[in-house]
Amino acid sequence: MDPETFQQLDKVIHEKGRMAIMSLLAARREWSFSELKDNLGMTDGNLTTHIKTLQKAGFVAVTKSFQSRRSLTTCSLTEAGRAAFSKHLDLLEQILRAHRPAE
Amino acid sequence: MDPETFQQLDKVIHEKGRMAIMSLLAARREWSFSELKDNLGMTDGNLTTHIKTLQKAGFVAVTKSFQSRRSLTTCSLTEAGRAAFSKHLDLLEQILRAHRPAE
Repeated sequence: MDPETFQQLDKVIHEKGRMAIMSLLAARREWSFSELKDNLGMTDGNLTTHIKTLQKAGFVAVTKSFQSRRSLTTCSLTEAGRAAFSKHLDLLEQILRAHRPAE
Repeated sequence: MDPETFQQLDKVIHEKGRMAIMSLLAARREWSFSELKDNLGMTDGNLTTHIKTLQKAGFVAVTKSFQSRRSLTTCSLTEAGRAAFSKHLDLLEQILRAHRPAE
């Protein structure tokens, strides 16, 4: 196992709450904030903090709009976010394969 | 993707520095502190902090002995540590398979 592989893991994505968010966003193009919240069982504050961290890293785009006079916040992966998440999965795959080569 | 899977990830193991330590300890029964340090490219302070966290969680055992009048600190996984690391790999595998089912 090459320790270099672990060093390459992006801390912004690796944190388990953010990894869960990135995972949902990778599976479907767009999520409303409240859908994410319900799905992940996170508090408003917790999800907001994570989304801001991901947005700051350039991985997630946030759009605010109005639907029937109610504000709607939607989140999606940016191209950079999709690439970074894919790289993250590659690294996790390398780590797994190093420990479980027989599978 | 079930967000529950992410919630089950143990934060003590998931942090990438500690995941690297657990990975080395899973691959070979015993490591001296200085071997770990060299291999991981960590500072004394950083490695000490991580080892203490892993020790406190019951995942790593630390033994101090003397070899040719020099003190030798060795680290190894406990049974609980081995089981927890294996569970962690299982969870990562589930996450990977959810995103890359075709492989």
